[in-house]
Amino acid sequence: MITVGVDLGGTNLRAAILHPDGALSAVQREVLSDPSPQAVLDAVVAATSTAMREAGVAPESVGAVGIGLAGQIHRASGLVAVGPNLGWRDVPFGTMLAAAFPCPVRLENDLSAAVFGEAMAGAGRGVAHLALVAVGSGVGCGLIEAGRLVDGAAGLAGEIGHMKVVPGGEACGCGEQGCLEAYVGGHRLALRARRLAEGTDPSSPLSQATVTAKDVGDAFEAGDAVARRILEEAGDHLGLAVANLVTLLNPKRVLLGGSVLLGIPYLVDRVRDGVSRFTARPALGEVEVALATLGDDAGLYGAAYLARSGASSAA
Amino acid sequence: MITVGVDLGGTNLRAAILHPDGALSAVQREVLSDPSPQAVLDAVVAATSTAMREAGVAPESVGAVGIGLAGQIHRASGLVAVGPNLGWRDVPFGTMLAAAFPCPVRLENDLSAAVFGEAMAGAGRGVAHLALVAVGSGVGCGLIEAGRLVDGAAGLAGEIGHMKVVPGGEACGCGEQGCLEAYVGGHRLALRARRLAEGTDPSSPLSQATVTAKDVGDAFEAGDAVARRILEEAGDHLGLAVANLVTLLNPKRVLLGGSVLLGIPYLVDRVRDGVSRFTARPALGEVEVALATLGDDAGLYGAAYLARSGASSAA
Repeated sequence: MITVGVDLGGTNLRAAILHPDGALSAVQREVLSDPSPQAVLDAVVAATSTAMREAGVAPESVGAVGIGLAGQIHRASGLVAVGPNLGWRDVPFGTMLAAAFPCPVRLENDLSAAVFGEAMAGAGRGVAHLALVAVGSGVGCGLIEAGRLVDGAAGLAGEIGHMKVVPGGEACGCGEQGCLEAYVGGHRLALRARRLAEGTDPSSPLSQATVTAKDVGDAFEAGDAVARRILEEAGDHLGLAVANLVTLLNPKRVLLGGSVLLGIPYLVDRVRDGVSRFTARPALGEVEVALATLGDDAGLYGAAYLARSGASSAA
Repeated sequence: MITVGVDLGGTNLRAAILHPDGALSAVQREVLSDPSPQAVLDAVVAATSTAMREAGVAPESVGAVGIGLAGQIHRASGLVAVGPNLGWRDVPFGTMLAAAFPCPVRLENDLSAAVFGEAMAGAGRGVAHLALVAVGSGVGCGLIEAGRLVDGAAGLAGEIGHMKVVPGGEACGCGEQGCLEAYVGGHRLALRARRLAEGTDPSSPLSQATVTAKDVGDAFEAGDAVARRILEEAGDHLGLAVANLVTLLNPKRVLLGGSVLLGIPYLVDRVRDGVSRFTARPALGEVEVALATLGDDAGLYGAAYLARSGASSAA
């Protein structure tokens, strides 16, 4: 079956064709200037049409469309209860998609799509108990248990970024305090480095308003003490959180992904170290920690494979 | 179908008949004086036979036998990799059971059986996304996601008691440090109260060598400051761990169970409070915290229902 995968971000979307042999082709990117549901729907349809045309695939030979979207999605109804990047609340996007396409459409959380993509075509191939922990500007995870996506009761599972690591600690973008994301997510990590640099060495490059997580990683490599302290703390919190996830869920493999985490090798090392130290021994003996390999394409592959699978069974 | 449920503890086992209408009858108890696999198998067969006789059920009308056992069980092979209460390592107990019974036998982790029992006959009835967090001398949990037991890659899922809550903290019975169980499990909770009482008020009833978790709960009710401090700390650690479980897995209901937790109402209150404070808001809005209702019978019901279901599908 030929399917289409769509990865719907906050500022742009990507779409591509998944062929029966597992090849992904004709990747399209569209900028989302208008986040209204109708405009986003139009952009999805446009990108999908362009991808089909470019791949030489007739619309009637597409068996299904899969879409990954950051947020809380009630899968049965296709309702997007919360879509933070688009500012959506209670948008019946699944229904809108179903009316716009002649084939079945599958709507899924973006990190669930990503972990499914890694399970089908990336570093989690053949692994039935898999977790993908991704750090970009935010922190989240996708979980597969016994070959099935873990969605939770309301499509909210995987919110590792909002597990509390310091009760009453740092303010998080979500409005709560002490979340993992408040220490590890790219935005907050850069902000913390900037604050600390301002307090200790105002001439530090890290005290500039434009500092990014990548800059913190580069400063660490150059021997910067502030960067070291911020990354140690971030890595320790993330390592402990991943260790506790492994102790609780006993995955066979944990994939580390996301541009911030993969862009800072020291952070990866520190997380691996934390997993080794803090995971309960029996579960530690069963788990491998590896790097995600599909990057941004994980969500495209995953959405397209989910569309193909229908029943959400992976390995 | 008539099935038999068996709950295999470290010092005794219980067996009972589950009738097609959901009634449990003829509950038997056998003391396990010899923990060798053959002796335990003989005791399982004996208790099962007695239960059938007492219930007036002919052996040939029993469709399946389910057994819950504390430990790490590879479900596909029936191998008990680790059975800590019995001192077992790599015991092919599933194979032994299959040879001893003419009907299918299902071997499962005891807390998985208990959460399945609560889902079928107790406080989790009809709930497809369910967690049971139980505190006895140890701390563990059973998890159901989308109507299926969460086993993990090696049958190790649910080890919430060995999630690290204080990195490098209190020694745990498992040999590691800073585990939740080291603060909340009945043995350790009593030990911590005793140590603290010895240091502050040697005449305190809590400084006796025989002190139990129940004594700590009673002392709290009588206004004892040491008991309050120990229970506050235990409740806060457990509340945070349960909150993080809810944030990560988005269950519809969390059941609190186990003799230590249910025997100390203040601990329950403190855990509820922690869940309210530390769970990410979206997941908090979807979850109910309730008390388990089947007590020791949860494992019996669960094992018998698992035997009946075969395919491990609950709600």
